[in-house]
Amino acid sequence: MRALLCLLAALSCATAATAAAADWPRPAHTEHAQLARWLAHTAQWGTISAWDAVNQRPVGGVASFSDGPPDSPTGRLYFYLTPMDETTQHITSYPACSFTVAEAQLQPNGCSGTDPEDPTCAKITVIGEMQHIASAEEADAAAAALFSRHAAMQQWPADHGFTFFELKVTEVHMLDWYGGMHIIPGSDYYAAELAPPSAAGSGQRQQRRQWRVQQALWGGGSAAR
Amino acid sequence: MRALLCLLAALSCATAATAAAADWPRPAHTEHAQLARWLAHTAQWGTISAWDAVNQRPVGGVASFSDGPPDSPTGRLYFYLTPMDETTQHITSYPACSFTVAEAQLQPNGCSGTDPEDPTCAKITVIGEMQHIASAEEADAAAAALFSRHAAMQQWPADHGFTFFELKVTEVHMLDWYGGMHIIPGSDYYAAELAPPSAAGSGQRQQRRQWRVQQALWGGGSAAR
Repeated sequence: MRALLCLLAALSCATAATAAAADWPRPAHTEHAQLARWLAHTAQWGTISAWDAVNQRPVGGVASFSDGPPDSPTGRLYFYLTPMDETTQHITSYPACSFTVAEAQLQPNGCSGTDPEDPTCAKITVIGEMQHIASAEEADAAAAALFSRHAAMQQWPADHGFTFFELKVTEVHMLDWYGGMHIIPGSDYYAAELAPPSAAGSGQRQQRRQWRVQQALWGGGSAAR
Repeated sequence: MRALLCLLAALSCATAATAAAADWPRPAHTEHAQLARWLAHTAQWGTISAWDAVNQRPVGGVASFSDGPPDSPTGRLYFYLTPMDETTQHITSYPACSFTVAEAQLQPNGCSGTDPEDPTCAKITVIGEMQHIASAEEADAAAAALFSRHAAMQQWPADHGFTFFELKVTEVHMLDWYGGMHIIPGSDYYAAELAPPSAAGSGQRQQRRQWRVQQALWGGGSAAR
């Protein structure tokens, strides 16, 4: 019974953390680095595309991540992975990989009815190299980032060898509007700053987004992708 | 004004189709091929992991898909892609790829609070080869599958060269419970049959899932991943 209560408490914390991260206001689609950073901070998970060198094919794997505690977005992408997972094996063998996050996945409403493939339903693919975190100081930062957003991780089996990784970002490929993909240099991505959440901004955000999506839908059919 | 009404009608249809697909009852975690098929039928989008042969790195891309109209799951994975998208360019150059779908992404509640990386929050990575659909008959099947689930696609710009693709499935990597990943042969995946939706089953499904998730959470910490 006590274990169940602990689990429910952990779930409750995780839900609260998620809500707090989601309060950061969505930047305009023209603010490419900021919007990439916003999506990286708001989402809870994504897909790592890794290279299976044995079978010579790219293989995706779902992974939770965090760029910092709910009130402290950093842009640094931390993961907590086990070598029992094929994705971990692939990135260890071939660290060049990418990590994809879609606005459509944000709970509870994603892009509010806009098709997930639509350009205005933002998506980022972060290109870089996945590195195992060896330093204790860096591991502490990763733990603070991850456990504040994924409370359940603290109960994951100790004998499964979970350790911290960081995706070192070289560039971000982002589609967030008509007109084609933007390539954001890693330095721009890391340097961007998000406007902090505010009670007023948070309350109006969903309304603004719904209006924007309704107005923007293919712009009468004449706008370029 | 008429264009706006058409768009709103299309959005309404898309939402209805999504709800209908989501009514198919979730198979037990022990029914691996069926569960993979359920996730492939219920989800609206996923991440294609493709090989960027020029830069020698795997790159993910978000894509909408469909395995059939809401009432007709087939397991065949259809896509509607434009050559203006880097993912399309990569798979055209190197067709071996994979496609990842997470139960966590299902709207509105994903895995109902379970961490997306938790093994019980199901995820599939479909391994195979992406093929352009050249035959008119096959293109009709792809159109029926896709447009019934993604009504907006019918309004996508004609000059963007969207055409149909199918991911020919050779195997599915699925994590849906403790104890490690299952590899499902493509033949088993295609042969599986889903239990059809029913009013009673649909109504009870969410309650059963919530109970299952609460009971299953790491099984007191002793279960293997």
